[in-house]
Amino acid sequence: MAKTKKQPRPKAETPKGFRDYFGSDVSERAEMLGTIAAVYHRYGFDALESSAVETVEALGKFLPDVDRPNEGVFAWQEADEDGRGDWLALRYDLTAPLARVYAQYRNDLPTPYRRDAMVPVWRNEKPGPGRYRQFYQCDADTVGTASMAADAEICAMLSDTLEEVGIPRGDYLVRVNNRKVLNGVLETMGLVEDVARRDAVLRTVDKFDKVGEGGVKELLTKGRLDASGAYIDGVGLSEDQAAPVLAFLTSKDDDAAITLNNLRAAVGGSQSGLEGVAELEQIADLLSAQGYGPDRVEIDPSVVRGLGYYTGPVFEAELTFDILDEKGRKRQFGSVAGGGRYDDLVKRFTGQAVPATGVSIGVDRLLAALREKGRISSTSAGPVVVTVMDRDRMADYQAMVGELRQAGIRAEVYLGNPKNFGNQLKYADRRASPVAIIEGGEEKDRGVVQIKDLILGAKIAENATLEEWKSRPSQFEVPRAELVAKVQEILDGQGE
Amino acid sequence: MAKTKKQPRPKAETPKGFRDYFGSDVSERAEMLGTIAAVYHRYGFDALESSAVETVEALGKFLPDVDRPNEGVFAWQEADEDGRGDWLALRYDLTAPLARVYAQYRNDLPTPYRRDAMVPVWRNEKPGPGRYRQFYQCDADTVGTASMAADAEICAMLSDTLEEVGIPRGDYLVRVNNRKVLNGVLETMGLVEDVARRDAVLRTVDKFDKVGEGGVKELLTKGRLDASGAYIDGVGLSEDQAAPVLAFLTSKDDDAAITLNNLRAAVGGSQSGLEGVAELEQIADLLSAQGYGPDRVEIDPSVVRGLGYYTGPVFEAELTFDILDEKGRKRQFGSVAGGGRYDDLVKRFTGQAVPATGVSIGVDRLLAALREKGRISSTSAGPVVVTVMDRDRMADYQAMVGELRQAGIRAEVYLGNPKNFGNQLKYADRRASPVAIIEGGEEKDRGVVQIKDLILGAKIAENATLEEWKSRPSQFEVPRAELVAKVQEILDGQGE
Repeated sequence: MAKTKKQPRPKAETPKGFRDYFGSDVSERAEMLGTIAAVYHRYGFDALESSAVETVEALGKFLPDVDRPNEGVFAWQEADEDGRGDWLALRYDLTAPLARVYAQYRNDLPTPYRRDAMVPVWRNEKPGPGRYRQFYQCDADTVGTASMAADAEICAMLSDTLEEVGIPRGDYLVRVNNRKVLNGVLETMGLVEDVARRDAVLRTVDKFDKVGEGGVKELLTKGRLDASGAYIDGVGLSEDQAAPVLAFLTSKDDDAAITLNNLRAAVGGSQSGLEGVAELEQIADLLSAQGYGPDRVEIDPSVVRGLGYYTGPVFEAELTFDILDEKGRKRQFGSVAGGGRYDDLVKRFTGQAVPATGVSIGVDRLLAALREKGRISSTSAGPVVVTVMDRDRMADYQAMVGELRQAGIRAEVYLGNPKNFGNQLKYADRRASPVAIIEGGEEKDRGVVQIKDLILGAKIAENATLEEWKSRPSQFEVPRAELVAKVQEILDGQGE
Repeated sequence: MAKTKKQPRPKAETPKGFRDYFGSDVSERAEMLGTIAAVYHRYGFDALESSAVETVEALGKFLPDVDRPNEGVFAWQEADEDGRGDWLALRYDLTAPLARVYAQYRNDLPTPYRRDAMVPVWRNEKPGPGRYRQFYQCDADTVGTASMAADAEICAMLSDTLEEVGIPRGDYLVRVNNRKVLNGVLETMGLVEDVARRDAVLRTVDKFDKVGEGGVKELLTKGRLDASGAYIDGVGLSEDQAAPVLAFLTSKDDDAAITLNNLRAAVGGSQSGLEGVAELEQIADLLSAQGYGPDRVEIDPSVVRGLGYYTGPVFEAELTFDILDEKGRKRQFGSVAGGGRYDDLVKRFTGQAVPATGVSIGVDRLLAALREKGRISSTSAGPVVVTVMDRDRMADYQAMVGELRQAGIRAEVYLGNPKNFGNQLKYADRRASPVAIIEGGEEKDRGVVQIKDLILGAKIAENATLEEWKSRPSQFEVPRAELVAKVQEILDGQGE
């Protein structure tokens, strides 16, 4: 008889480019999404959780990002009777599914339809450091109205949202621009049809924040010597041709009215450009009437937003405080949200253009920012650990955690092998436990428990003076009946 | 030049077997999961959100459910350089990914590791009515301890969870059994090796709730005439052979100690059976010491649980109140959660058996039960709608919703075409708005607003007498400055 070949063990590994999220990473995100959902809800938005799986037909196969047309989706073919069914794919964003949902249910949904969605999306991209193939998006969109009041509302809501999750006024700015204005400028330059040069100009405009007016001027014309010493080819415009772009980029003034006048000049006689400026003016008026001034929302011509599908206003929320990058240099935290108006996505399905506008918050970046600034109200404190001194008295220890939980205190009994007490304290340490409870036979007989303040204990062990050590003991003996009250007291003190 | 063929429009359809969730369906589920997470957290469980995508190798390709071995997963092959990369798949449950995660991170995770997870899973099954290919699971598991205290804790936590989400004591029951007891009974019958007959006996045991002692006896022996008149073949045991199964199934008594004695008798001399009874006794003792009596948790030998991987205690939570089925007949709502001990899942990866126990709550069924009983505290009330009487005064209307939101009231401005006022009220109706605000030019001049109580208005329109109509107007005129206070007053009254 042939030997049965032994199956190799499967590898315990997340697939390349995917990751798992543990403990506070999950609960802090859930808490932040809950806060955001409450703001959106107050603004009249309704939650939508569309199917994670879409037909490739409905989704469109590729990302609409013109800069990365080859990046795709995770797709597979359904097996029907002939083995050749529909192609299905995981959603790569929340806008394509919204367009499908709106087209599918348009007769039942209110118009305008305000919806929010906060779920993962998947992208079949080459994984890289910090670049994952599954991540959360958090979107709010208003479908079915061309009114600039919808765009203004989203800017105000974005501003409220950032403050509510813990970014104070002054530490963020919502910047608004309008694609039509930029198109108007390109029109005056005669570049609307010259796609290659137009895109080169757009890419250059996007670099304004980094290289400034002089840099953009060089890049639009003859080219520029990089900080690294490399020579970057220019777009090849004459200085005269480049002038409207520079006028556009330098339009920004602290007074929105002056910015708008500058923009009006920059777009010359372009109809589309003037329309864009008028739209920006409406948004600015609505926002300022509601008290959203330039300390929260401002018009900024340098906002471009990569996605090809935007047709009118575009917005971006930036965090303006400095952080240190990996090399210890100061830099601004940067963008945490963006969006704009897109009017053609539903048309794919119905043939009718449906105006829509929306915003997407980069959940992971926003969480990173809040952690950076220590502004996450952590619910991630470890549990009180009741140690097991006598394995036959498990019921006693369970009763203790029961009482603690009744009082709303996170608590657990050590359920590993209780033989080695050191292991129990190591476990409490790994759990980031604030407090450990000890009740051996001797304590039981005397009707008391030992309560160990692990946070204070660690502090004392690290750097307390002898006096402090003596004056602030980290272990307390209390009557069993006072267990909960004493633990509560210690926890309250640790929060200080 | 050849005509370019016009591309047909994509169909706006969810793929077969998938669905979208709207508004309150999403927010009510999120709220319930938040409540459950808080209970789990209090018990010391830490959240885990594993990658939705796993390698097929890590996942194992098929569901572990012995009854449905052919049902599968959504899988695809990665394209590497040669176009033949790893096979990846969407997770089909939360236990297989937990086993992978624990094996992958076992040196960094605490032992025992208590984790909870509340995310969608995907199954490549034939869709049917009410049977979807994506649904939520909500699991809590303790990995790395063989202690029955872990199983008892999960039963207590399940009981707490049900009460916290709104199922009062008396309307549910957590039933506990132990696979080893059933195995012991099969051992005394000499059926452990005879897989086909053993499985037939297990399937029959599972029908005890429906057909009772007499029915099971018939099914185990000669067969049985169904209620529909069909004849169901029996397993073919003699009455003597069937006796231990019947003794086992009828072991249940209101007094757990008597149940345990009956079970001890039913397993005869089987070592495994006696071990199972001893484990049940430990669980019952721990639970009763914490006050979880038979009004919340009881030993019930008829609990089987389909999954093949359970190795010890198994639990099931049932809702015990009656509902009316689609034909208007009374029936019990039934199971909303289940789980048990499984000791071999991590072994696939590491070669070492790791004891584990856990529970899974059927989120959608539990939500359905809460809705059935009217016990969902709905956050799904529609927004106050501020109508647009004069489109040039959008800023005024935005200011109103701004004030309402400041007071925590959900509110929005109508952003559709304001020309036809009837459409605005129709919109408010579709949004389930409680209140509409009207401020035309005439009101503006007089410094007042009209506030329409839409809930009362609908009631009056439906069935009020003339007197009521006169005495309870559904429209109020108040000074503009009293807008928020009056809306709040109306909303408070509607809640009564």
